[in-house]
Amino acid sequence: MHRDNPPNAVVLLSGGMDSATALAEAKAAGFRCHALSIDYGQRHQCELVASDRVAHAFDVADHKTVKLDLRLFGGSALTSDQAVPKDRPDEEIGHGIPVTYVPARNTIFLSLALAWAETLQAFDLFLGVNCLDYSGYPDCRPEFLEAYASMADLATAAGVEGRGKFRIHAPLLRLTKAGIIRRGLELGVDYSLTHTCYDPTPEGLSCGHCDACHLRLAAFAEIGMTDPIVYAK
Amino acid sequence: MHRDNPPNAVVLLSGGMDSATALAEAKAAGFRCHALSIDYGQRHQCELVASDRVAHAFDVADHKTVKLDLRLFGGSALTSDQAVPKDRPDEEIGHGIPVTYVPARNTIFLSLALAWAETLQAFDLFLGVNCLDYSGYPDCRPEFLEAYASMADLATAAGVEGRGKFRIHAPLLRLTKAGIIRRGLELGVDYSLTHTCYDPTPEGLSCGHCDACHLRLAAFAEIGMTDPIVYAK
Repeated sequence: MHRDNPPNAVVLLSGGMDSATALAEAKAAGFRCHALSIDYGQRHQCELVASDRVAHAFDVADHKTVKLDLRLFGGSALTSDQAVPKDRPDEEIGHGIPVTYVPARNTIFLSLALAWAETLQAFDLFLGVNCLDYSGYPDCRPEFLEAYASMADLATAAGVEGRGKFRIHAPLLRLTKAGIIRRGLELGVDYSLTHTCYDPTPEGLSCGHCDACHLRLAAFAEIGMTDPIVYAK
Repeated sequence: MHRDNPPNAVVLLSGGMDSATALAEAKAAGFRCHALSIDYGQRHQCELVASDRVAHAFDVADHKTVKLDLRLFGGSALTSDQAVPKDRPDEEIGHGIPVTYVPARNTIFLSLALAWAETLQAFDLFLGVNCLDYSGYPDCRPEFLEAYASMADLATAAGVEGRGKFRIHAPLLRLTKAGIIRRGLELGVDYSLTHTCYDPTPEGLSCGHCDACHLRLAAFAEIGMTDPIVYAK
């Protein structure tokens, strides 16, 4: 569909498994994809290198990286010197809001995507959040995404002039991590290009012990596959 | 009120008349004010110098300037090479959305204020928008601000954990420009510290001909005062 004049979409692309799969879904749905990455001072800067690899693999129409140093506000283990938790027991992961929560991160990222969408006359924003295997982040929940879309229609020239309504696509919202990988493999995602770890070595090897590594490794184990990325010894 | 333990507020401070007045209102309401300015690649960079002057004059608890280059997206006369309109007839100003509209600007700025508010455990955000003398910006309307506050409660750890509800304060929302100046003078705002012009000279002198200058000059004339800032000849 839309083969001759595909509609534009802005896809938030972190370089992780989820956003790579969300990009694959946007491509599969027939959108002309504009990938947006944010260099927010995250300790896992190597995910930005992964975002380049993924954007290239999917031959996106355009890929922009915005620099926005959220370390100015701190408040998260990802943007301050606070330690990233390691080897938390299963029953702790996914309960409560962890210290890796970055205040208002998805709100900020969607706002940047919205700004780009307005200049592209796009109404479709994609992001790779999911609320099943999620790590307790408030801004990964469906009620947040719905409220965001309503706000976006009121915030923008395009919305006010009635040229369209914004749609926030979260195609992985109700998938488990294993389900995301299964779906991604169907869509041709090469997970060896992605980066997940919150606390990689200086060489970019994944730690294998933070919540993000834990969920990734458990998901590959669940579907009986070996994770194609390299972990630190 | 709140004299012993004043609540924190984040105040978006552009360096213009409106945000200076909004800061004065936040101070007068008893808040401990944290001023946030955004260096977004605006052509009128000298408003950032003005924001320093105003923050200093009001002895804020803290003043941060976030760098976020919105020229990456363009789409506005303020963030691209597109010309700023000059000497538009009165009947044109305030009708339709002008080329100085920056896509999703207030959405982005409020999101940054929200991130800082979360780390400060603040629930009060102030901004200087108004919808009477406004220049046709969709993100200066009360319905946008209401939708934003509802979204913020769902977006944040503080909102989800029920520690409070976010309040978006727009104390100038229904004031005319002249009314804003009258109120600001009561509250001790020194408008000679502020900057308004969209298209200043390299030395930072105001052009006197853009929509922003036009509204400012007309407001001072209305209250029978001379604008204390210097205009280019």
